[in-house]
Amino acid sequence: MAATNGVWSEKILHLLRRMNNFYSTGSRRRVEREVWRDVEVLTEMIPQVFSPPQGGAVGLCPGLDSYESRSEAVDAVLRSLRQEDSITCLKGWRDEKYSVMPGCSDPPLMWMERAATSLFGVKRYGVHINGYTVGESGEVSMWLARRSRTKQTYPGLLDNVAAGGLAAGVGIRHTLIKECQEEACIPSAIAATARPVSTVSYTYEDEEGVFPESQFVFDLQLPADFRPRVGDGEVLEFHLLPIEKVKELLASDDFKPNSAMVVLDFLIRHAFIEPDSEAFYQELVSGLHQTL
Amino acid sequence: MAATNGVWSEKILHLLRRMNNFYSTGSRRRVEREVWRDVEVLTEMIPQVFSPPQGGAVGLCPGLDSYESRSEAVDAVLRSLRQEDSITCLKGWRDEKYSVMPGCSDPPLMWMERAATSLFGVKRYGVHINGYTVGESGEVSMWLARRSRTKQTYPGLLDNVAAGGLAAGVGIRHTLIKECQEEACIPSAIAATARPVSTVSYTYEDEEGVFPESQFVFDLQLPADFRPRVGDGEVLEFHLLPIEKVKELLASDDFKPNSAMVVLDFLIRHAFIEPDSEAFYQELVSGLHQTL
Repeated sequence: MAATNGVWSEKILHLLRRMNNFYSTGSRRRVEREVWRDVEVLTEMIPQVFSPPQGGAVGLCPGLDSYESRSEAVDAVLRSLRQEDSITCLKGWRDEKYSVMPGCSDPPLMWMERAATSLFGVKRYGVHINGYTVGESGEVSMWLARRSRTKQTYPGLLDNVAAGGLAAGVGIRHTLIKECQEEACIPSAIAATARPVSTVSYTYEDEEGVFPESQFVFDLQLPADFRPRVGDGEVLEFHLLPIEKVKELLASDDFKPNSAMVVLDFLIRHAFIEPDSEAFYQELVSGLHQTL
Repeated sequence: MAATNGVWSEKILHLLRRMNNFYSTGSRRRVEREVWRDVEVLTEMIPQVFSPPQGGAVGLCPGLDSYESRSEAVDAVLRSLRQEDSITCLKGWRDEKYSVMPGCSDPPLMWMERAATSLFGVKRYGVHINGYTVGESGEVSMWLARRSRTKQTYPGLLDNVAAGGLAAGVGIRHTLIKECQEEACIPSAIAATARPVSTVSYTYEDEEGVFPESQFVFDLQLPADFRPRVGDGEVLEFHLLPIEKVKELLASDDFKPNSAMVVLDFLIRHAFIEPDSEAFYQELVSGLHQTL
């Protein structure tokens, strides 16, 4: 049962607003003079590491003048805070070093425990791959992954065929080929045919902090007789679905939100949405590309 | 002689910043408490039509409660101001009624002389068409128009194969087919195969006012043996150019700026830009989708 167009649009606009709620009225950014409170406390408690916020952004003391000194000083603070159990996002500690970079191709300034990045609103970059097939009469179907029910984030939800975060110093295509192999057993000869076509950017906030993210988007047309297979256990199963069904699922709560945005971008670029019949066409496009 | 990648990126980033200069530090929007002065004067001089600015936006008096009454009251003011010769943008008076609509599919609230819309920052919508061919070995070439040297705006510059503004109550596809026919003699049977793929949105300001615009973007693959022909005289000539040459021209001053953005969007969607070698890939995408 396909949703009516108006209901579908409302659901999708809601998704885009939620993923960009940092820009909304009432967000931490918009409430005047409100500084991210946990960070403000940090700068008062630990002046030897953090300098007071300026323009809403916390700084590091100038004495911390190297990659190692910055990383170690901040890590020591975060580990001590983790013991106190007072900061929500640190409860999800992963022991995963995330590179803090001004832009995704800049050299990293420091590394930080991944779970702590939302405390400072560190921008994160990733790669998402739309895996799809084109039938003999031109009909498009898309491969979607169902995430493992034991994943720490968004367990059991639908996702792109493969995706992953960009680590410092690792290329975008390199990450794509690695994730295709690890998550979906897509051989590198096939993954290498993926085409870079877009980015999807957004900033959301929740009780754990602020999440500014940009995903590099690739389209990967898979051979009709190829089936992705579960690789490293991050995926429960893969489904090949007609594009109309994918469109319908986008408006459900069954999709990992940022992966739904990547699929929406695919639907727009591949002309599956007609501006004359989608009153919010321009808003749908703009909602995929918000940046600070 | 192809430009080096770094120089090309700088030129394109400059284009995107210029077309979004309303969002920059120092723009009228960012200078605190500064209201668009000409409009402020209007509201003081003509309180029977304009209500004082609120949140930087001028309003119309509530008594003007119909499409006709709003349109006629504002037109009378604009015609009188035009006589005084004090407002720059009114010197370009076109006698063309532009529909003022909150969104491009909303019913128009009023019409306004097209040359005056920048005085109030009225949002304008249009359609741009990327006309291209794909050769036997897959090589892509693009048809570009050279604008007539007698056009009022951007005379003699390169442009998309066809483009035009959206008038109130006229569909997007209808406008596309009309512009393809009128500007490039593309038969409607061919124009109808155009695929809606994107929007390009930006807001710039200059001495004539503020220009928030969104263009609906279509890709139109033309048969290899088809040649667009000059139609209504808005175009001087058409050129079919290899995509690498088009990319090079984008970074020149030979392109109508918003049409260059539409071509940049094409280059990105068709994988002619590789994120691993374009350090500003994400900024290029975001710069095509800025909205108020």
